Amino acid sequence: MRATAEPAIAVTRQLGRFIATSSWLDIPVDVRREARRTLVHWIACAIGGSTHDTVERAVRAQLAMSNHGNARLFGRRERLVPASAALVNGIASHVLDFDDTQLGATNVHPTGPVASALFALAEIRPLSGAALAHALVLGIEVECRLANAVFRHANRGWHVTGAVGSLGAAAACAKALALEEQQIAFALGTAATQVVGLREMFGSMCKSLHTGRAADNGLTAAMLAAEGYTSADAAVEGPQGYAQVLNGATDLAGVVGALGQRYEISRLSYKPYACGVVMHPTIEACLRAREARPDLSARATAITLRVHPDVLSATGKQSPRTGLETKFSVYHAAAVALVHGIAGEDAFSDAMAVDPHVSAVRGRVRAQPDEAVRKDEVHATFSLPGETIEEHIDHVVGSVTRPMTDADLERKFESLAGEVLGASRCGRLLERCRGFEEISDAREVLAAATA
Amino acid sequence: MRATAEPAIAVTRQLGRFIATSSWLDIPVDVRREARRTLVHWIACAIGGSTHDTVERAVRAQLAMSNHGNARLFGRRERLVPASAALVNGIASHVLDFDDTQLGATNVHPTGPVASALFALAEIRPLSGAALAHALVLGIEVECRLANAVFRHANRGWHVTGAVGSLGAAAACAKALALEEQQIAFALGTAATQVVGLREMFGSMCKSLHTGRAADNGLTAAMLAAEGYTSADAAVEGPQGYAQVLNGATDLAGVVGALGQRYEISRLSYKPYACGVVMHPTIEACLRAREARPDLSARATAITLRVHPDVLSATGKQSPRTGLETKFSVYHAAAVALVHGIAGEDAFSDAMAVDPHVSAVRGRVRAQPDEAVRKDEVHATFSLPGETIEEHIDHVVGSVTRPMTDADLERKFESLAGEVLGASRCGRLLERCRGFEEISDAREVLAAATA
Repeated sequence: MRATAEPAIAVTRQLGRFIATSSWLDIPVDVRREARRTLVHWIACAIGGSTHDTVERAVRAQLAMSNHGNARLFGRRERLVPASAALVNGIASHVLDFDDTQLGATNVHPTGPVASALFALAEIRPLSGAALAHALVLGIEVECRLANAVFRHANRGWHVTGAVGSLGAAAACAKALALEEQQIAFALGTAATQVVGLREMFGSMCKSLHTGRAADNGLTAAMLAAEGYTSADAAVEGPQGYAQVLNGATDLAGVVGALGQRYEISRLSYKPYACGVVMHPTIEACLRAREARPDLSARATAITLRVHPDVLSATGKQSPRTGLETKFSVYHAAAVALVHGIAGEDAFSDAMAVDPHVSAVRGRVRAQPDEAVRKDEVHATFSLPGETIEEHIDHVVGSVTRPMTDADLERKFESLAGEVLGASRCGRLLERCRGFEEISDAREVLAAATA
Repeated sequence: MRATAEPAIAVTRQLGRFIATSSWLDIPVDVRREARRTLVHWIACAIGGSTHDTVERAVRAQLAMSNHGNARLFGRRERLVPASAALVNGIASHVLDFDDTQLGATNVHPTGPVASALFALAEIRPLSGAALAHALVLGIEVECRLANAVFRHANRGWHVTGAVGSLGAAAACAKALALEEQQIAFALGTAATQVVGLREMFGSMCKSLHTGRAADNGLTAAMLAAEGYTSADAAVEGPQGYAQVLNGATDLAGVVGALGQRYEISRLSYKPYACGVVMHPTIEACLRAREARPDLSARATAITLRVHPDVLSATGKQSPRTGLETKFSVYHAAAVALVHGIAGEDAFSDAMAVDPHVSAVRGRVRAQPDEAVRKDEVHATFSLPGETIEEHIDHVVGSVTRPMTDADLERKFESLAGEVLGASRCGRLLERCRGFEEISDAREVLAAATA
């Protein structure tokens, strides 16, 4: 069973060396800026998701095991032990499907596992804003490079965010703990052997668990490595290692090519709509079409979407029954945008899943996969009696080509966090986040972000 | 990427139903007896391993995160939160590679993840000895059936104990929490999406982490399910579910065939030697040969082993450098048995890894895989100047055909636990374990088993 050829590239070791030697001073200004943007945005998502039923249940389960923790939760009053806080904050930040996405070879959501682990670590180790931001950049780097190399050509069925998240969180925590190269490599290995994330879970509460458990796994891996806990030398690249066993991947050159010369965080995008990014072009097309013709949903006899093939593999549920399931239905996304003109959290609720108008329109939507359509693109055709309307979205808002502006992000922050914290506390938190890199203790943000 | 054909068997649901409806009164007497035997044996392993450097480091890492836990550790004084106690007890019980093995299609070590999770659960929920034993039987059942079905034909590189352990621990904890069928199915699914265990980790501290983290994952999954946390309906059998994604397995009939009519726990075996069971026939052959000819190691110019092919894939390290690595070297196991006549924990130490006599003999050992040789069998040939000695072990001691007796197990208990607890405390603990099913609170055993 053991393959005989040894891999040429010592990926685990090279990542360890890169992380150990990286200095905040090396990080380009635009990369620092994107670290701040994704952090602000992620905090908004974590607070916005913090009152979700999924999070309530996770908190109750954790409290049933231990109510002696001191680590804070975004948007909530309870405190948990650090690993559990990482778990719950991770769940909260992903449960709305509203967090950041890297539109690379996969649609990975890299900030969640890393930031969740780092804020939990900040509760037990002094961590400045700059140190946290630096660790965040490195953790995201590890996640995106693994996503793009290991899951590039095919995916056996892993939720990539979970599958790479443990390693990203471990990398970040190991840096924040100032571990040495060998320990960082062992932290990566210890994370690599704790995998989360089957795609079968999409539409259930376990999808967001992946982000949280990856954070917990990575934090735990780094804490173990700090105590000299050992792992395999070739954890990522070995014949029975992470890349090979999870996804049969052998070409790992991309994981370590040009490390420190380009940063993957620069390719992050943020979502204007509260669902998987693959459905966004469809939603923008439907919202635009409805703006021009408010009676469209009542009159259209057929709605035909030409979409990137990922749209159907990830969001092909034709008859979603719950709010969570609607997030995996491009048919629902199109219908709810056309009928009600909405695409926020309220569009993907249990109520909307069974809304009779939405469900009637849903049945008229057809989606055709087309390799020639890019991920940020859609061709939508609305057939009405006697006429046909075409809507082409070339680059959807929130894509790398048409990014959300800082002002867009702050509006999203106010909408998500304001509802939970109230406008005045939300404003103070946002102010603090704007100067995140100058904060001497990252816990200042946590203190301002609890309910 | 999504396969189109839906699987015929609702494995997750059927397991949930079986666990929900199983009654202790249904469990045959010989199955109850084996539950007690494996529990006594496992406790001995956990206590014996509790002072290992690997465990020390894991405890320090956990305490660095939270020192407010109340859950006890076998053989130690510290207390941790329950999930961390499950983690550490699991590590301790597997770190010596001395725990139970099911010699089915794989060499899974099923008791560790399940028992570690159950004793942690017993700290927060009242649990009688009988309730714990019943949950243990069911957890082991789930693990062994998954091991034998999902990893039967090939293994992409998973450490099976870790890969099935989360589900076994979840099944057991869900039963101990008296959850209903749907919740148990969700607990199984929530565990299925938290996978541990790359074989690349063999020889590092992460191997035993797999047992511990699987316990933690399963306990957490059951606690989440108890609060109504949802998972996928077809978590195990779905097109993007556990069996398919981890190992490309589609024939899952064996997971649910004749449930409740036969029990996998009946096929457990216990190790006389402190290393992977695949090396045991070789060790017994070498010990026997040395008994007949004490000068054998000095005189043999070549030692040739004909072994089951698993021996080389699992324990093919030719030049182990550390005690941990020696456990994955059939060459070392043969050499140390021949040179020093030992096969306990002391035979697989850092000192023995670099012992010059052992290392010289190691270089004279050759191992040939042979499909015709059974797992519990070996043909050893010792070439001396002018003569050849043959040693054939047909069924090694500890195999299903030649099981360890109750007296053998108690001797092993006294040897492992006695060293840590002292003879008199060890004797009292053993007495309590003998009547485990009659204990009203399983914590009585924990109280007697700490340092």
